Formats: sequence, structure tokens, C-alpha cells
Amino acid sequence: MKIPVAILGATGSVGQRFVELLHNHPWFDVVAVAASKQSAGKTYRNAVNWLMHTPLPENIASMVVQECQPNIPVKIVFSALDTEVAGEIEKRFAEAGYLVISNASSHRMHSDVPLLIPEVNRSHLELLDQQKFATGKIVTNPNCSAIGLALALKPLHDRFGIEAVHIVTMQAVSGAGYPGVASMDIMDNVIPYIKSEEEKLETEPLKILGTYSNGHIIPASMKISAQCNRVAVSDGHTGCVSIKLKQKVSPEMMIEAWRSCSSDIHHLNLPLAPKKATHYFDEPNFPQPKLHRHLDKGMGVAIGRLRKCSLFDYKFTILSHNTIRGAAGGAILCAELIHALEIR
Amino acid sequence: MKIPVAILGATGSVGQRFVELLHNHPWFDVVAVAASKQSAGKTYRNAVNWLMHTPLPENIASMVVQECQPNIPVKIVFSALDTEVAGEIEKRFAEAGYLVISNASSHRMHSDVPLLIPEVNRSHLELLDQQKFATGKIVTNPNCSAIGLALALKPLHDRFGIEAVHIVTMQAVSGAGYPGVASMDIMDNVIPYIKSEEEKLETEPLKILGTYSNGHIIPASMKISAQCNRVAVSDGHTGCVSIKLKQKVSPEMMIEAWRSCSSDIHHLNLPLAPKKATHYFDEPNFPQPKLHRHLDKGMGVAIGRLRKCSLFDYKFTILSHNTIRGAAGGAILCAELIHALEIR
Amino acid sequence: MKIPVAILGATGSVGQRFVELLHNHPWFDVVAVAASKQSAGKTYRNAVNWLMHTPLPENIASMVVQECQPNIPVKIVFSALDTEVAGEIEKRFAEAGYLVISNASSHRMHSDVPLLIPEVNRSHLELLDQQKFATGKIVTNPNCSAIGLALALKPLHDRFGIEAVHIVTMQAVSGAGYPGVASMDIMDNVIPYIKSEEEKLETEPLKILGTYSNGHIIPASMKISAQCNRVAVSDGHTGCVSIKLKQKVSPEMMIEAWRSCSSDIHHLNLPLAPKKATHYFDEPNFPQPKLHRHLDKGMGVAIGRLRKCSLFDYKFTILSHNTIRGAAGGAILCAELIHALEIR
Amino acid sequence: MKIPVAILGATGSVGQRFVELLHNHPWFDVVAVAASKQSAGKTYRNAVNWLMHTPLPENIASMVVQECQPNIPVKIVFSALDTEVAGEIEKRFAEAGYLVISNASSHRMHSDVPLLIPEVNRSHLELLDQQKFATGKIVTNPNCSAIGLALALKPLHDRFGIEAVHIVTMQAVSGAGYPGVASMDIMDNVIPYIKSEEEKLETEPLKILGTYSNGHIIPASMKISAQCNRVAVSDGHTGCVSIKLKQKVSPEMMIEAWRSCSSDIHHLNLPLAPKKATHYFDEPNFPQPKLHRHLDKGMGVAIGRLRKCSLFDYKFTILSHNTIRGAAGGAILCAELIHALEIR
Repeated sequence: MKIPVAILGATGSVGQRFVELLHNHPWFDVVAVAASKQSAGKTYRNAVNWLMHTPLPENIASMVVQECQPNIPVKIVFSALDTEVAGEIEKRFAEAGYLVISNASSHRMHSDVPLLIPEVNRSHLELLDQQKFATGKIVTNPNCSAIGLALALKPLHDRFGIEAVHIVTMQAVSGAGYPGVASMDIMDNVIPYIKSEEEKLETEPLKILGTYSNGHIIPASMKISAQCNRVAVSDGHTGCVSIKLKQKVSPEMMIEAWRSCSSDIHHLNLPLAPKKATHYFDEPNFPQPKLHRHLDKGMGVAIGRLRKCSLFDYKFTILSHNTIRGAAGGAILCAELIHALEIR
Repeated sequence: MKIPVAILGATGSVGQRFVELLHNHPWFDVVAVAASKQSAGKTYRNAVNWLMHTPLPENIASMVVQECQPNIPVKIVFSALDTEVAGEIEKRFAEAGYLVISNASSHRMHSDVPLLIPEVNRSHLELLDQQKFATGKIVTNPNCSAIGLALALKPLHDRFGIEAVHIVTMQAVSGAGYPGVASMDIMDNVIPYIKSEEEKLETEPLKILGTYSNGHIIPASMKISAQCNRVAVSDGHTGCVSIKLKQKVSPEMMIEAWRSCSSDIHHLNLPLAPKKATHYFDEPNFPQPKLHRHLDKGMGVAIGRLRKCSLFDYKFTILSHNTIRGAAGGAILCAELIHALEIR
Repeated sequence: MKIPVAILGATGSVGQRFVELLHNHPWFDVVAVAASKQSAGKTYRNAVNWLMHTPLPENIASMVVQECQPNIPVKIVFSALDTEVAGEIEKRFAEAGYLVISNASSHRMHSDVPLLIPEVNRSHLELLDQQKFATGKIVTNPNCSAIGLALALKPLHDRFGIEAVHIVTMQAVSGAGYPGVASMDIMDNVIPYIKSEEEKLETEPLKILGTYSNGHIIPASMKISAQCNRVAVSDGHTGCVSIKLKQKVSPEMMIEAWRSCSSDIHHLNLPLAPKKATHYFDEPNFPQPKLHRHLDKGMGVAIGRLRKCSLFDYKFTILSHNTIRGAAGGAILCAELIHALEIR
Repeated sequence: MKIPVAILGATGSVGQRFVELLHNHPWFDVVAVAASKQSAGKTYRNAVNWLMHTPLPENIASMVVQECQPNIPVKIVFSALDTEVAGEIEKRFAEAGYLVISNASSHRMHSDVPLLIPEVNRSHLELLDQQKFATGKIVTNPNCSAIGLALALKPLHDRFGIEAVHIVTMQAVSGAGYPGVASMDIMDNVIPYIKSEEEKLETEPLKILGTYSNGHIIPASMKISAQCNRVAVSDGHTGCVSIKLKQKVSPEMMIEAWRSCSSDIHHLNLPLAPKKATHYFDEPNFPQPKLHRHLDKGMGVAIGRLRKCSLFDYKFTILSHNTIRGAAGGAILCAELIHALEIR
């Protein structure tokens, strides 16, 4: 008996990724898809411009798209809604008793909302007790770039302490949704600006890597400075990171931290959990989006090029899949964790 | 009466850019093209795989390519030779009395060789007196990324002093020569590594921005840390820069420094000199390679996105054309300066 | 004293190309820009997302965008309006006495409207006498792919007669306007469909190559079959053509027809007219969009790869710039012709 | 007990695809990899520039690359050798008693060599009796574009008869091997020429669709005319086909022919065989390389856009994966067929 779930915002690019990743999921079964008024009433097949490379699952294709009203007979909804509408709709679902797993930014920084990466901060689920809904809950998945960064920082933060992080990203077009970035804007080009992205990347990891204590999160104390660029890549966000640690450590210790990283969710055998959250590559020109975005089902973070920095301590490059690890996959992993912990 | 010049390594991608930019040059006249043994003896038309978007000039097309031997009846040679062979060949030309304007890296960091950007360090030409050749001379053009960075730093260095510079580049494929980067490697991808590039970008600007004194250059004292990436862009290197200055300055003072930047070569009216070396754009998503690489004949540096940095003082983005400003155009400007100053 | 003109639909991608090409035009002076209601009232600078690689002309940038109402104090308007609205608006301008040079498809196939390519069918301007407007007139510029094809066919049609033409196009994304084709749709992809394009390409050349007689056009009698694809190219439509002629001719005669093609407008020295409408290249891998779209100011058609066909007589490849020759440039050339002929 | 096999030319792009597709193959086990002298002696890991998106299998990575000498202890070798050397080396292996399954073009058109597509012409294996080797045999896999075309034509040829085929291809860069097409040549471009490709596409399908009779193949009698282009696509060759049939048929009959296509190898359950060789899509803008190249494990041919043609009978678009169906995958399927038929 699988658990029935619904997807809000199911026709967008992240919504489609939810459909793809939940197809044949061992625990969850998509029984409803919801979207904006202009899609509601159509079959999903007709409402969607299917962009995934795997075929549109037949059972979903024939579903009639619903409006995003809290009258769907499931207990868990995944939200891939646009930020403009997500805040209000998700709140209504939580008030109606749903567990909302959201990929939108609206509630991420609220003091009683977990900004959850299962391998990093499962203890933040304690925050759910602070939420004021009768029975519903809201759990959020971080920004697509913040997830990859936080996963790469986690073992360093735990072992060595982090003082400062400087990151320059080169982000895929799929991060902008669909139709998103116009081809005339990005072909043969770099766009050195993504609205609100640097702000998210400078603040979300502080909450993610923060400590739960007495009903709230004490943010991590490091400073982060971010510069975000859009490049002509379909999927996979690359980040050039410079880092200053609290301790002096050798390169070998850094690499060992990533290679031996484990997590307190490992024993739960969550279906979408990567074997290892971070993979360090020795090749001098790795990681690359084309080669590593599908690492560990698209849920792993590829790291490489560790070398000394004359201004910070170290420099390295990170790469993660922005719509799998950084969006739908990450959110599903959150739901898997909550289910495994029997929080509900 | 124009000055006859020759191009060494004329069939490569930078060599072709020399041919294009010297076509109809008001002062110089290409009378010979030289390349490797396998091209020598063919007409230039047959030896070259012409990649420029302007037509191959007819007079050059019909020239027979020569070997790179110092028996060409000109006094000035432009070198677009590969680094592997440039060092030795350029030395032989200098020993034979030629003025060699080189785009190769072989001699750049030699203590008696000017690493010249005319708008930045014309005083470094004094170094030529230190060279031991009978009458020949070697002048070098910096690395393609270093030129854009040095031009952007120059007015800040002069007015405010610079302590530290952190740069992450997104570089065009034309920087790797031809055939250079394989399409299978770069389409839908980012390659976070360019051989020897970070080393050049961390050291060359120190010499470029250094001070001539008593026969040698005292390097600038700032620290630079660089991370270099290859992206799917045809021409134009983008850089995300973070900077720490010696003085506290306002954003307006930074922008004013770039907008009012002038140079001690301005009055010379050199044909390829840009009207202004640096252009600051107010648009939040500028500069972009596709839109700004041809700025001021491809010789200007586009700058934008100035904002405060929580780790350094400021962050901003720079963009310059790597085979015009950063290679052939920059080298021709060096020759124009030397000619205008009647150094020879 | 230049002739004042206005641009309707001035903010779109073809509208911008009009602004660029009319900047410093020797005969015409843009004194007004008009667009949709949502742009009207803003300065052009604020209303437009400028995509051209040359800077936005300052005098245009500061103009206030007007609504498309026939109260603009000029006699000639260039229309880059969307097809959905072009038909009605253009008619109103013509009724109000304007000469409308339109790039939209709405009126192209009307029996009293010239579908004009100045080098091909200037005699079709006779149709203007059939138009029922008091003093206004409508002249249309053909579809972007049809222009390149008709120019390549013209000398063959005149000399040898054409029975059948089979064309498969690979069209640039700029042909779809802005934002147009989503980057997620076209990167690493081919889209084998462009709405209504094949129909235009199969019918417009018949009218273009037709004969004016007694107040109407007798279409050319050839048959055309077209297949249209969108590819990841910024500008420049490529076409693979197979052709059956009415006479048996040698390859040399074909090439000679293109190389010696002349036109009855040559002596008029129209500012945007290419030196030659068709250029045949001998290189086995030419023409290519990246190398030849800017041929002759973007107004020439590049042709290459002529070889025998086992099903038709010959196969060859054509290439022309879709927003210069195929849109704004072509329309301006129409206006130049009308002005030179003093039709008004 | 799996059958041990070896790969010749294992380090190139098709060689790598063999390694990927044979990893965990249920019948075959790669026990040796061979390549040119410059790779021989290195581990495969060090000799190869691994381009596949799945990880390099560990057991192959640690193998020492051998020279292509017929002393490898297997009975079946897959050849991904370059055409320049394939002819001679493959002959030596056949003379030494090996079954050579070749992806190279050298032996394809020899009268006693099957040009095999298992679903299309398994009867051509009878040709093996004509080969003069003592015990060895050579079987060839057709050109990457010819395979997709022949599979799409097969059901039409069988049911309706084909008179003429006109095809224009838009081919992926992976078809040119590695490093193959330079990024500077193909980014933002189309190259309307691929050496020798049109000749192969015009002749190979005639042999493939021919009839075995008395020790030789009687070629199919249709005429084919081809135009081949390289486009900026990583994998997947698209073809625009026009066809004249011997019978008059309705569009429904065409589509039915593709949808109900079956094959006399279906019952053999070959591991790499697609469920159906041809898939017809109703969507007006399908097939597309990005969406359909992985259809049926990359072994299916996607077809769409069937419509009437004014010059032929019908037009349609085909798409197949050039290095899976069109190279390594197709060759492995040949070996699977031979093994299943117990020909050896």
C-alpha cells in the first residue's frame, strides 16, 4: 500500500521532475496533479509541455489537472509552485491539515519552518513542533544552489569549522523554469545576474548549517559572499568556492572529510538518498555538469580541484543537479525522511 | 608609406585575428606571413582554415606562407606562435634585429621584457634598454584574461590602492586556439580548468601594475587568487571579481574611477586605442559577452554589477574580447605605441 | 534633409533591427517609435530589452514610445508588428495616407499588394495602382526564408526555367522573435517544426517570381515543397535545396548564373543594396551561418555545394541573414527603391 | 558463463560506447581492449578520455590496452577502428579465425559481407558462407544515418514499395568521433558538409534493403538522394525525408506500417533489441534529438510529422541515436543475433 501524494504546480519544469521521480517510487503514489486555473480541467498530457527525457507516465498523463485547492484526498503534497503564489497556497494547505513539502522560497526563512536537507540537518525537524497549524506542517527544500553548497560544506563545518565562504556560480537554464531563459539571451553568452539568487545563497546555508536549540535555529556563524551567473548549460549548477576554515588542515584532511562523509540518515535506506552525499574527484578538470550531474541518481554532489588559495585557505569546485538534488529530488528525500521517522 | 610587418604563426586563431585587424591598418602593412613547416610553401588561402567573420583579405590570401626564419624583409614581426615554439623563435628574431611584438607567454615574465598594456604601463618600455640584443627587441602582450583584469584594476590601483583581488573567470573557447576545445567537451557543459591559466592570472597583473625603477620592475604588492573556467562562449572572457582596497571608498567613487579613466597615451591617437579603456554599465545584468565583446572595436573593457561584498570590499563583473583586446588587438596597440613614441 | 520615418512594433527583435539599420541611414531619419499599449508612454530605453550588438542609439533611446495610431507626423512607416495585430493596424495607417512597408505576413498574399524584393520583382510595384486607399499604400517584405530562396532562384528562373524546388531549412532562433524560442527547447536540440513556415515558403516565392500583367501577378508555375526546422543558431537561415530545371544545364552555367547575377535596380545605388545579391562559394563546406550571415552588410545570399542530384537536377545550399536580408534590411531596401523611383 | 569478447579501437568515442553498453551485458563479457600503439601498454583508465555520462566500469578501467593484433584469447571482436586502419586490421583478425563485428565502413560494400541490421535483413547472414576466410567472418554495421533511415523505410518498402527517397540530415557532433568537430566550428553554426556521408547514405540502404539470392545481394531498386549537415547537437541524427512509393497509400496506412512493424527476430528476445524498431509520434513538433534519442534504450527510431508532399508522396522526420542505434548498440545487436542463431 503506497502513500498517496499530490503535486502542486505539476506542469512547470520542477513539477515535471516531481512527476518523473515519483513515477514508480516505492513508497509514494501520485494520485493528483494540480496547477494554475489555466491548466485546471485539462488532462495533464494536454496541460503540460513535457520536457523530461523519459516518457510521460501514462497514468499521470491521463489525470485531469485540478486547481490548487485543499480538497485533494491525500495527506502529503509536494509544491513546485511559483514563488509569487506559493506562500499563500501552501499556507492554506497546511491550515487544512496537509504536510506540505515545498520547493518554493516563500516560507524557507520563517523561524518555525525547517529548511531541510536530510543528510545535513534532520534535527531541524524539531521545529515542526513550533508550527501553529492544527495538524498540517510546512517543510521547505532549500534553493538549488544552496543545497549543493551546504552539502559540500557540511563535513568541513563539522570537522574544522568554517569562517568564510566565497562562491561564484555558473547555473543551468533549467533553474529558471520554463520557458525561462530565452535562447537569444543565453546562446553564446553568460548572464552575470540571477534575480534574488545571491541573497538566497548568502543566507540559506547559515540556517541549514545552524543548530536547533529550544525551539529555534541558531544560524551558523560563517560569512558567505556569492556571485551568480547563468550559463548555457541545460542542467547542473557549478560553483567555484573559496573557503577559510577555523582550523589549519591539510588538503588530505579536506578530501578525507568529503570521501568519508556519512550521515545520520544513512541507516534509514531512503529510496532517493545517494550512497554518499559528496564525491571527490582527483581528475584535474572535474567536476563537469555534463559528466557528473547524474551522479548517484542526480542526488550526489561532485567536488574537485581542491587547491590552496592565497586569500582564503582553499579553493575547490562543486557541481550538483539543480532540478534533481536541488529541487524535486531533494524535496522527495525530505518526504522520505519524514515518513521513515514516522513523524506523522 | 606604410611600415611593412610580418606575422609569425599566422594561420592559427590569433594569427588570423592579426591578419583581420591589420587589414587596411593606417600605419602597418602585412607583407609576409610565416607559420610552421607544414604550412610553409602553401598559399595562405590553402594553409589556413579561415575562421574570422570578415572575408579573408585577397592580398594576404595569395601570399606564400614562409617558415619562421629571421630572413623576412621587415623590421617588425607580430608573433602568434604557440608557446612551445615561441620562446626560441622569437629570440632568434630579436637577435637578428627585429622588433618582436609577442602574444606568447614565453618571455612575459623575463625581467628585461615589458609586459605591455599601452594604457596601463607605457613607462615599462624603459626596460627595452636592458635587453641584450644588438638592435632587436622583444615586447610582450599579457595573457588574455590578465589584460581585461589589469585594465579594470588600473584606475582603482592608482586612486585607492588594492590589497587583494579574487577572480573567477568564464572564458571563451577561442582562447584555446584552433581546433582547441572539442565540441563534445564544451556543449552543454562547463570545464572548470584551463592549463596554466590561473598561474598567469595571479602573477602577470602584478608585473603589469608594477613600477619601473632603475632598470627593473617592482611588482605591485596586491595578492590575487584566480579560478578559471571554460564556458560555451565563442569570444569574450567574463570575470567575477571581488576586491579589497587600501582605502574605504564609496561605490560612486569606484564607478567614477572607471568612467573618468584616462591614460597617458590618449593624446597619441593610436588607431586601435579605445576611446575609453573601461566602460561601466548601470544595467543590473550587464556586461555580457554577446552584447559587449565588440565594445569600442573590441578594445574596451565592460564593467558592471558593482556591489558591496561581505568578505572583501566590493564585487563586480568584467568582460573583454579575448582575441582582440586580449591578443592580436592588444599586441597591435603595443606596436602602435612604440611607433608613435619613435622608440625605434 | 532626410525623410522622417516611424517604426511600428519597434521594441521586438525585428523592430530593434530596424532601429539599428536606420541609425545613420543616409536617406531616412527615425522620428518616432510605436509599440503596444504596455510599452507606450515609456522611453524606448525603458520599453526595450535591447538585443543588438551595436549600442542603442541615444536619440532613439530617449524617445517616448507611442501607441500605433495613425497620427504620427511622417509619411513612411516600417511595420515590425506581430501578425496577430499587423493586418488591422497597417490597414488603418494606409487608409490614413501612410506608405506602410510591412514585414508582417498579413497582407503579403493580397492580390493588390506587392510582395517585394527589389532585385527580383520591382515591376510588382505596379500593383500599387490597384490599391483602394486614397493616398496610402501597403508594400510587404516576404517571409525570411522565402527571401533567401527567391533571390537564389531568380537567376535560374530567368535563364533556365524552374520546374520544381525541394527545400529543407535550418532556421535561426531570432526568426521566432523575442523571447521566442526557450533555451530549454533548443539547446542540444533540433525542433523539426515552425508554425505556418512551410506554407509560406511553398507559396510566397511563386508570387515573388511571378509576372505582373494587367493589374495582377501571374504566379510562377514551379512547384515547391518545404520542410522547416529550428536549430541552435542565433542568426542566419540555412537551406538545403534540390531543383529541377526546364532546361538541361551544366554546373558551370548554374554557378555563372549566380556569379553574374545583376539586377535592374543596380544603377540606383540604393544604400542597403548588396553589391551582388548572390555569392557562390567554391569551398566544399560553405556556406555557414557563422561565417556568411554578414556577407555584403547582411544583405547578400551565400550559395555553395552545387552538385548533381539523382532525383532532381541539382542540389545546393543557401544561407541568408534572417533579420537583416530576411526582415528589417529587406524592408528598408523596399523603401529605398520606392523613394529612388519617386513613386510617391 | 558469458562469452568473452574484445573491443578494437576501444578508446575512441564509439569504442567507449561499446564499453558502456557491454558493461553488465547478459551474454558478453569484455575481457580485452585494444587500440593504437600510442595507447597500448597504458591502463584503459589512462589511455581514454572518458566521455560517457555513466561511470567508467572499474574492471575495464584497470585493463592494460593491447595493440590490435590477432592474439587476443576471444572469438568475437567488436571493431570501432578508424576507417583508415580498419580494413587491414579487421581482415587480419578474420583470417586468424575471429568473428569481427565492425562499425567501420571499409568492408561494408564488399559483395560477401553482410551489412546487417538484425530487424531488417537477417537473411543477409547467408553471405557469410561466401567469405573465404578459413573460420573467421566479417559482419558490418551500417553508417549511423543509414541505419535510422533503413529502419524507417523497411516497413514501407515491404508493404508499399519505394521508388525514391530524398533525405536531408542534421547530424550530431558525436558522429565525428573525438575530438572531432571543433567547438569554434559548430557553436552557433551549421556545417553543410560531412565527408563521404552523402555517398554512404545514398548507397548503403540499397544493399541493406536488398534481397539475398544465390550467394549475393540484389540491391533494392529505389533511388536515394542525400544532403548531410552537422548541427550543434551532442547525440542523435535527425533526417527530413521525402518519399515516393510504388503504391498510393493513405497517411493512416503509413503510420500503421510503422506502428505495427514487427521483425523476424522479435521472438529471439535479444538483450539490446528495442521493443519496436519504429515509433510514430502524433505531436506536431516531434521527434527531437533531446527528447527521443534515448527511446527504447537508444535503439528505437522516432518518426513524426507525416504529411503530403507536392513533389513526392509524403514527407516525414526521423530521429535515431547515432552512437547507440547507429554504432555500438547496432553492432552489439548484430552479435546478439549471430549468437542466438548459433551461426558459430
